[in-house]
Amino acid sequence: MGKEHMSSQFHAELSELRLRLLEMGGKVELMIATSMKSVVERDSDLAGRTIALDAEINRMEVEIDQKCFHLLALRQPAARDLRFVTLAMKIVIDLERIGDQCVNIAREALALNLVPQLKPYIDLPRMGEAANRAVKLALDAFVSGDASTAHQICRDDRVVDELNDQLQRELLTFMMEDPATVERAMSITSISNFLERIADHATNIAEMVIFMVHGKDIRHATIADPG
Amino acid sequence: MGKEHMSSQFHAELSELRLRLLEMGGKVELMIATSMKSVVERDSDLAGRTIALDAEINRMEVEIDQKCFHLLALRQPAARDLRFVTLAMKIVIDLERIGDQCVNIAREALALNLVPQLKPYIDLPRMGEAANRAVKLALDAFVSGDASTAHQICRDDRVVDELNDQLQRELLTFMMEDPATVERAMSITSISNFLERIADHATNIAEMVIFMVHGKDIRHATIADPG
Repeated sequence: MGKEHMSSQFHAELSELRLRLLEMGGKVELMIATSMKSVVERDSDLAGRTIALDAEINRMEVEIDQKCFHLLALRQPAARDLRFVTLAMKIVIDLERIGDQCVNIAREALALNLVPQLKPYIDLPRMGEAANRAVKLALDAFVSGDASTAHQICRDDRVVDELNDQLQRELLTFMMEDPATVERAMSITSISNFLERIADHATNIAEMVIFMVHGKDIRHATIADPG
Repeated sequence: MGKEHMSSQFHAELSELRLRLLEMGGKVELMIATSMKSVVERDSDLAGRTIALDAEINRMEVEIDQKCFHLLALRQPAARDLRFVTLAMKIVIDLERIGDQCVNIAREALALNLVPQLKPYIDLPRMGEAANRAVKLALDAFVSGDASTAHQICRDDRVVDELNDQLQRELLTFMMEDPATVERAMSITSISNFLERIADHATNIAEMVIFMVHGKDIRHATIADPG
C-alpha cells in the first residue's frame, strides 16, 4: 500500500471517528433533555425510556474507544492527530458518565412522580438547559478545534454552580420549615447535584480541548481554581 | 541509536511511568485518609492541609499525562504496552477527580467543625476505609496487571453503595424528626456521596484493568448492570 493511500485512508478514519463522537454526543444531549423532561413534566414513561437509552451510550463508548486504540496501534499518528485521538479516548469517558447522571436523574423522577409536586420547577430546567448547551458546545469545540468556545464553557460553568447553590439553599429552607418536605427536597437536591456534575464533565472536555489547541494545560490554572 | 538501546530505554520509561502513578496514588490515598480524619476527629487544621495537597495532585496529573503523550509520540508502543500507556492516561484523570472529592469532603469538615456534632460517626469512617482500600487495590491491580484483584474491587463497590444508602436513610429520619438537624445532616449526606464517588472512580480503574489484562471489555456487562 502506497504512503498516499495510507494517508487518505487514515484521514477517512479520523473523519469517521469525529462523526461517531458527534453521534454519541447527540444521544447524550437527548438523554439530558429527556431526563429533565421526565422530571419537569412528571413523565415516568419518559424516565423509563431515558434509562433504556443508556445501554446504547455504553456500547458507543466501547466502540469509539476501540476505534481509537486501533488507530493508535495501526496508524501511529503524530503531533496534532495523536492529540486528537488520545483526547477522543478521554472524552468518551466523560460522555458515558454524563449518561450515567441522566439515568440517576430519571430514577429520581420515577420516585418524585409517585408523590405530589413540592414546588414548580424553575431553576432546575434552567440548569438542565445550561448543562445540555455546555455539552453540545464542548463537543463542537473539540471537533472544530475551537479554543474560544471552550473558554466560554469554562466561564459558563460558574452559572450552573451558582444555580445549584441557590437551589440547595432554597430546599434547605423548605426542609427546615416543614419536615414533610424532606424526602422530596432531598430528591430535588440530588437532581441539582447530578446536573452540576454533567456541567463539570462538559468543563472537563472544554479544558482538554484548550490543551489540544494550544498544547498548554490550563486544567489547573485560573479556571480550575477560581480564587 | 541501536534498536536494543531504544528498547531498554523504553522499558526504563515504562517503569518510571509505573512509579510515578504509584506515587500519585499514594498521595491520593493520603488525601482520602486525611480528609476523613478531619471529619471524624473534627480537625479543621487537617482539613486545610488536605485542601492544600490538591495542587500537588493536579501537577502530577499534568506531568504523567504529558509523559504518556511523549511515550506514544516517540516510542509508538504496540499491543500490551500501548494498552498500558493509554490506560495510564485515563487513570490519572480518575485519580485527580478523587483528589477533588477529598477537597469537597475537607470543605464539609470545615463547616461541620463549627457546629456541635450531630451524631458519632460510625458508617462514615467505614466507608472511607473501604473507598481508600479500593483505590489502593485498583492501582496495585493496574501496575501488576492482576485481573482477579480488579474483579474483587468491582464486587466490593456494592458494599460502599449499601453503606451510603443506609446512612442516607438514617439521616433522612434525623431531618424529618428534628428540623434543627437539617443543615448538618445534609453535610454528612454530601460527604457520604463524595465517598461513594471515590469508590466509583476506583471501580472505573478496576474495570479498565480487567480490559487491559483480558483485552475484553466488561465495563458495561454484568458488573455495571448488576441486575
